[in-house]
Amino acid sequence: MKYLIDQGKFLRAKANYDKAKAVLIGVPMDFTVSFRPGTRMGPRKIREVSYGLEDYSIYADDSLNEKDYFDAGDVDIPFGNVKKSLEIIEQVTAKLLDDGKIPVYLGGEHLITYPIIKQVSKKYKDLVVLHFDAHADLRDTFFGERFSHATVLRRVCEHLNEKHLYQFGIRSGIKEEFVFAKEHTRMNPVNVKKPFLETMQELKQRPVYVTLDIDVIDPAFAPGTGTPEPGGCSSQDILDVVSCFKNINIVGFDLVEVSPPSDLSERTSILAAKILREVLIAVC
Amino acid sequence: MKYLIDQGKFLRAKANYDKAKAVLIGVPMDFTVSFRPGTRMGPRKIREVSYGLEDYSIYADDSLNEKDYFDAGDVDIPFGNVKKSLEIIEQVTAKLLDDGKIPVYLGGEHLITYPIIKQVSKKYKDLVVLHFDAHADLRDTFFGERFSHATVLRRVCEHLNEKHLYQFGIRSGIKEEFVFAKEHTRMNPVNVKKPFLETMQELKQRPVYVTLDIDVIDPAFAPGTGTPEPGGCSSQDILDVVSCFKNINIVGFDLVEVSPPSDLSERTSILAAKILREVLIAVC
Amino acid sequence: MKYLIDQGKFLRAKANYDKAKAVLIGVPMDFTVSFRPGTRMGPRKIREVSYGLEDYSIYADDSLNEKDYFDAGDVDIPFGNVKKSLEIIEQVTAKLLDDGKIPVYLGGEHLITYPIIKQVSKKYKDLVVLHFDAHADLRDTFFGERFSHATVLRRVCEHLNEKHLYQFGIRSGIKEEFVFAKEHTRMNPVNVKKPFLETMQELKQRPVYVTLDIDVIDPAFAPGTGTPEPGGCSSQDILDVVSCFKNINIVGFDLVEVSPPSDLSERTSILAAKILREVLIAVC
Amino acid sequence: MKYLIDQGKFLRAKANYDKAKAVLIGVPMDFTVSFRPGTRMGPRKIREVSYGLEDYSIYADDSLNEKDYFDAGDVDIPFGNVKKSLEIIEQVTAKLLDDGKIPVYLGGEHLITYPIIKQVSKKYKDLVVLHFDAHADLRDTFFGERFSHATVLRRVCEHLNEKHLYQFGIRSGIKEEFVFAKEHTRMNPVNVKKPFLETMQELKQRPVYVTLDIDVIDPAFAPGTGTPEPGGCSSQDILDVVSCFKNINIVGFDLVEVSPPSDLSERTSILAAKILREVLIAVC
Amino acid sequence: MKYLIDQGKFLRAKANYDKAKAVLIGVPMDFTVSFRPGTRMGPRKIREVSYGLEDYSIYADDSLNEKDYFDAGDVDIPFGNVKKSLEIIEQVTAKLLDDGKIPVYLGGEHLITYPIIKQVSKKYKDLVVLHFDAHADLRDTFFGERFSHATVLRRVCEHLNEKHLYQFGIRSGIKEEFVFAKEHTRMNPVNVKKPFLETMQELKQRPVYVTLDIDVIDPAFAPGTGTPEPGGCSSQDILDVVSCFKNINIVGFDLVEVSPPSDLSERTSILAAKILREVLIAVC
Amino acid sequence: MKYLIDQGKFLRAKANYDKAKAVLIGVPMDFTVSFRPGTRMGPRKIREVSYGLEDYSIYADDSLNEKDYFDAGDVDIPFGNVKKSLEIIEQVTAKLLDDGKIPVYLGGEHLITYPIIKQVSKKYKDLVVLHFDAHADLRDTFFGERFSHATVLRRVCEHLNEKHLYQFGIRSGIKEEFVFAKEHTRMNPVNVKKPFLETMQELKQRPVYVTLDIDVIDPAFAPGTGTPEPGGCSSQDILDVVSCFKNINIVGFDLVEVSPPSDLSERTSILAAKILREVLIAVC
Repeated sequence: MKYLIDQGKFLRAKANYDKAKAVLIGVPMDFTVSFRPGTRMGPRKIREVSYGLEDYSIYADDSLNEKDYFDAGDVDIPFGNVKKSLEIIEQVTAKLLDDGKIPVYLGGEHLITYPIIKQVSKKYKDLVVLHFDAHADLRDTFFGERFSHATVLRRVCEHLNEKHLYQFGIRSGIKEEFVFAKEHTRMNPVNVKKPFLETMQELKQRPVYVTLDIDVIDPAFAPGTGTPEPGGCSSQDILDVVSCFKNINIVGFDLVEVSPPSDLSERTSILAAKILREVLIAVC
Repeated sequence: MKYLIDQGKFLRAKANYDKAKAVLIGVPMDFTVSFRPGTRMGPRKIREVSYGLEDYSIYADDSLNEKDYFDAGDVDIPFGNVKKSLEIIEQVTAKLLDDGKIPVYLGGEHLITYPIIKQVSKKYKDLVVLHFDAHADLRDTFFGERFSHATVLRRVCEHLNEKHLYQFGIRSGIKEEFVFAKEHTRMNPVNVKKPFLETMQELKQRPVYVTLDIDVIDPAFAPGTGTPEPGGCSSQDILDVVSCFKNINIVGFDLVEVSPPSDLSERTSILAAKILREVLIAVC
Repeated sequence: MKYLIDQGKFLRAKANYDKAKAVLIGVPMDFTVSFRPGTRMGPRKIREVSYGLEDYSIYADDSLNEKDYFDAGDVDIPFGNVKKSLEIIEQVTAKLLDDGKIPVYLGGEHLITYPIIKQVSKKYKDLVVLHFDAHADLRDTFFGERFSHATVLRRVCEHLNEKHLYQFGIRSGIKEEFVFAKEHTRMNPVNVKKPFLETMQELKQRPVYVTLDIDVIDPAFAPGTGTPEPGGCSSQDILDVVSCFKNINIVGFDLVEVSPPSDLSERTSILAAKILREVLIAVC
Repeated sequence: MKYLIDQGKFLRAKANYDKAKAVLIGVPMDFTVSFRPGTRMGPRKIREVSYGLEDYSIYADDSLNEKDYFDAGDVDIPFGNVKKSLEIIEQVTAKLLDDGKIPVYLGGEHLITYPIIKQVSKKYKDLVVLHFDAHADLRDTFFGERFSHATVLRRVCEHLNEKHLYQFGIRSGIKEEFVFAKEHTRMNPVNVKKPFLETMQELKQRPVYVTLDIDVIDPAFAPGTGTPEPGGCSSQDILDVVSCFKNINIVGFDLVEVSPPSDLSERTSILAAKILREVLIAVC
Repeated sequence: MKYLIDQGKFLRAKANYDKAKAVLIGVPMDFTVSFRPGTRMGPRKIREVSYGLEDYSIYADDSLNEKDYFDAGDVDIPFGNVKKSLEIIEQVTAKLLDDGKIPVYLGGEHLITYPIIKQVSKKYKDLVVLHFDAHADLRDTFFGERFSHATVLRRVCEHLNEKHLYQFGIRSGIKEEFVFAKEHTRMNPVNVKKPFLETMQELKQRPVYVTLDIDVIDPAFAPGTGTPEPGGCSSQDILDVVSCFKNINIVGFDLVEVSPPSDLSERTSILAAKILREVLIAVC
Repeated sequence: MKYLIDQGKFLRAKANYDKAKAVLIGVPMDFTVSFRPGTRMGPRKIREVSYGLEDYSIYADDSLNEKDYFDAGDVDIPFGNVKKSLEIIEQVTAKLLDDGKIPVYLGGEHLITYPIIKQVSKKYKDLVVLHFDAHADLRDTFFGERFSHATVLRRVCEHLNEKHLYQFGIRSGIKEEFVFAKEHTRMNPVNVKKPFLETMQELKQRPVYVTLDIDVIDPAFAPGTGTPEPGGCSSQDILDVVSCFKNINIVGFDLVEVSPPSDLSERTSILAAKILREVLIAVC
């Protein structure tokens, strides 16, 4: 109807699915009690605050409204059922990859990365994963469970070649995780920008999937997350990193663990929206 | 696409426009407020928290998911331009009335009621307006302006027959407004439930438009509003009132002045969503 | 060591376990992601704010520091494992009942009531349960699960005689729950104080277990809970109810769903602490 | 200078001291560390939010801007020095009484009532004090101190005739206080409106000082205070009480314990401002 | 009256207007904002928190209480009337300049800079403007309006010589603005401290007006603003810049867009107060 | 009792006092009115959030659960009595030193450092004190009092040899304090990390006491404190400093002025817990 709009899309996205190079999908999964969760509100809030952002990026000297991306809404998660949820995320990813799209996800919790990588790594045999996070997420089990936000990168590793996981900004974990990392991943503790710039040189045209946990950034800049860990990088650091993504061959991306209830000033969601804008400009 | 949903609708609304008896529209306008701005965020937040509500109402012993209503999204307000905004709201209302729909609005500020009533009163010559509010909103001008949230009911009066405006819960205003009310409206100061029940008896099948400013309810129950005024009714009182709406002939409705930034516990938006559920059940 | 204290007990509780008539236990279970939960923080916060309360109650004209109750700390919940958690709660309850204690619990989520009732109903064959809540909690399954905070009273019913569950203040649920209630429970919708006073007359010396979900009280008085439901009773109503508990034969009690993260003014926890003081005075 | 205003006065007060019948004075005393205190911010915040209030009162059918009152600013409290602070408050009161003014105070903590009453009771030998509060404040000492917010009414009693202290809404204290009250004051526990209306009848033209601790009102309506105590009266109750003040002979008034840092929605300060408006209209 | 003070002035300002070199004025206007309103509360809050600051500055090794500045209160803005508001600000500025004062403003929204510059540039023909901001504010129109917080520097440019506008920290805008900037202003994107220090060298004794939008600083350090834009400078950077102001010839200053409702920790207002202290020390 | 735990210890501390090398003690002293204080809630909250931390530290490549430290609970402060409180803190410290323990304190306000240093300096004649703070705290008196959080380091100086107090990060104070510092302390204004690393070289095996006021860190990283002062160091800076503590001979430590009520995101308490973990690993 004339004069009416649906304010629910990221940065007033308008392109259609068929023409889109990248497709944005929210995954509001966190499985807390029932009504007042945390990261499940991430996708909605990030879209909401994107209205305060410009389409144009001074970092890229390019504008998102000249890009073909599509905002496909949210995955319809069967509440409380982890197994079924992961299957659905995997199927959605498979469909996007079949259709030749670059999948771009907004979490939700970090566990969603696992079913995505299962499919992405099937398509791209030599896949490299860049993991930005305060936490190693490399436990084998967490309270007896193999599938958890604390074990997700360990599970991811099982679908990658040795040393194909690059980790940045890690500053929390148990001893076992760092021992594992030494052997099986390329971990860069605490720092983010400098090691990324070095890594970027060697990636060339290899297919890269990026998973960015918002808590890699210091809680001063991104307080809205479930497990804030002081000692992280600044928002300017992460923007410097993200604006280099045009130089690598990104085949998939997720941004997870934004938790609006802990983000009273909304600056975490605004930062997430800005990162997302840069990523979409870079990959489209 | 399979598995994907748009979470932006009220209580998972699914009916289509053509079959709908009532149509819900958000009006995110708050340009003329005076004390604490923020109602532009009302429609979005009320839809968001509606996910914690059941479809079934114990008050009505009826369920919203058996009703035909349509959530049409938000009016695309030309930011900062009061005149143009009011024109658009009026045109949208005209279209809905032409199509035989019952228009149901979520504000935004109270001024939106004026262009709506202009059209509704054109269609229903003998229209009665029920006005629930802490403030009389009957000034002739406010800071020299004729169109403001503080003058809106005065403007509304100019489109109604004498004494066709019933006011409930009023407990703030300037002297001039109460003098005007004595002559031209039927004002019930402070109290809400008792005078409404009495009024209900005499309304019978006359066409009724209801405008409900959330601040009619005490700030203890509804703190999220721009000009909270202590001494209002309880949430139970207003639910008792609203659940009687099935007994009168409502031809239009708006719920205004919910201001999420002042509503940290979200209980104002939740109350608004619950009122809206009752209203939709009553009118469909 | 001299001059050092442990500030973690309710109202500076000092009695020892052996002499205690009632034993207070926290159950910090809510199974949210990992760090920033909701109701799991309830027991800790209620104890903390109890330092602002007096031992003396004007309602009872009696003082808690003349009563023998013991604060036993919290149940050590195996994080994320619902089945094991419920087993432990059941075992703790069995032990307390064996020792002749009146168990008094602070939740945590409502599901904890189920394992408690399993044991209490085994000891007291004719047990009556008084259930104060905004929600019926009578679903048979919730997202396919039989054990959930939304099904807990349905499970409880299976351990009671027909019509031995009295419900007060219920104002939310799905149709199926109210149909079930009509046949199997004694439900008092919306209202709390009046129906309780009537019920009290008929209970005489029958053994009574009370489960009180803080959301039975209106969110104005108790905003700190996971699923606030407007239209509830006042804090004065609930204090009037609780101060009558000395007239009935209470053999167990729980107070659940206090969620400190949504309770910025702390008044929900303070109200919970005050209710708990009255209950402990009543049962000791 | 033209076009410039000082927004620091209550409800845009303009009358000058000489003509004023009542004089408003803030007493920002609470003696917490140094920067982020609680009730010391009360006077400033109450004045600030008064800008959202109308001058006209529907309760009194009268308007504050036709009254002669003067806002004299704040007492310049010597920080951290209780003794000297009380002396200064006493001297300020003496001056106001000498000048024939009705002193009206905004706290600040409750202890300020003591030096005021010392002077007021000297002028009015038969003085009656009406005390609205959740707490009895009748201890003889508190942590060894004779001058504290918890002992203030006990000290006040020493300057009044027997049974000249009327207490309303009291619902917290230690046993000793209630024993003292039974003998020496007229205490009305829990309730406010009904006992006040009865008391009002017998006061006739006797000189009355009113001290109103905001916590007499339930924390749902007035969360912004240091020691919230659930089970209080509603904002409508207190407005009903205050709007009767024109029927008694008030010779002084204070409103204490409003603590803006605990008042995120500002409704406590707004309620305080509204009470103050009614009081000023009543006494001028 | 003895012992009484007016706490509404910045840092206990006492000098009188005639002797003052600089005059501080609040402009509580926020009508044209687009994302999150609230800056109208800025001047009052900045004055309030200034009580936690020392007069002495370690950066300047100088003390504000030895300086002659006057706090003239707030401009009495005709609410909702943009045109009239701008005229009044312009007249106030003209008066201050006539009287030989250095005008120092606290916003309010950024649009206020326009009427100020109109007058300042009339007095100082060769005026240079230093603009610290996250946003370019160089649009020609915004939602069809020529006067808006998003167009204000474009309007300012029309009153300056070519390339007399220096911009620092800019990291958001639409393409058109950056094209305009390349031709007509001296824009330093993203960075603040380094380019300012370079610019400072070339300014010498030219008359300089500084307009500082608080959002030039990263939202981590200054969350309390309407359109937070991640990727800004630190509070230490801006203090380093401001403490150099004594080296240039400042003839006017404004600090805008502080929005207390988004500043729960108050650190934005405290930073603003500290910047203001440094500026007043530098210019007096 | 089986299955029950006391959740009140730091990072699940279990070691016993006799074997412990370091002993952790909370000092909940801040002497605000009575119920809702600030820093008195620090020790409790820091322990609470420590549950989100890992035992293992990547900075130290060492794990706290292999260290012998004991959490002794809180000092039982006689409320409101400064003199007696300081005496008790002194006695507790004496006992710990007698027993050969390294005392580690959580404030509470900064004044607690004074009685601690009195004892520590008695044991270690050549004691060096490292003072991290935004404020000099070197006044001789504050509002006439010699013992205050604003005078505490001045008092400390009187128990140390000349120039044995090293100060880092200082950026606020009155002139007199900086004059005193120039003669009697080694003050490093504003900066923290660089001057500390230089100082560390010269300390060698001299006995060192560290007092760390959380406000030395910028309010962006540590908003939860009473007197936030913009322009401080980052959380990464302070973690870099603290992780060097293993290189010096620390004989005592305190961390003060964490104020949970101003720390809505809890990141200040989390940072404090992380600092504490590093300190305990370093000294044990």
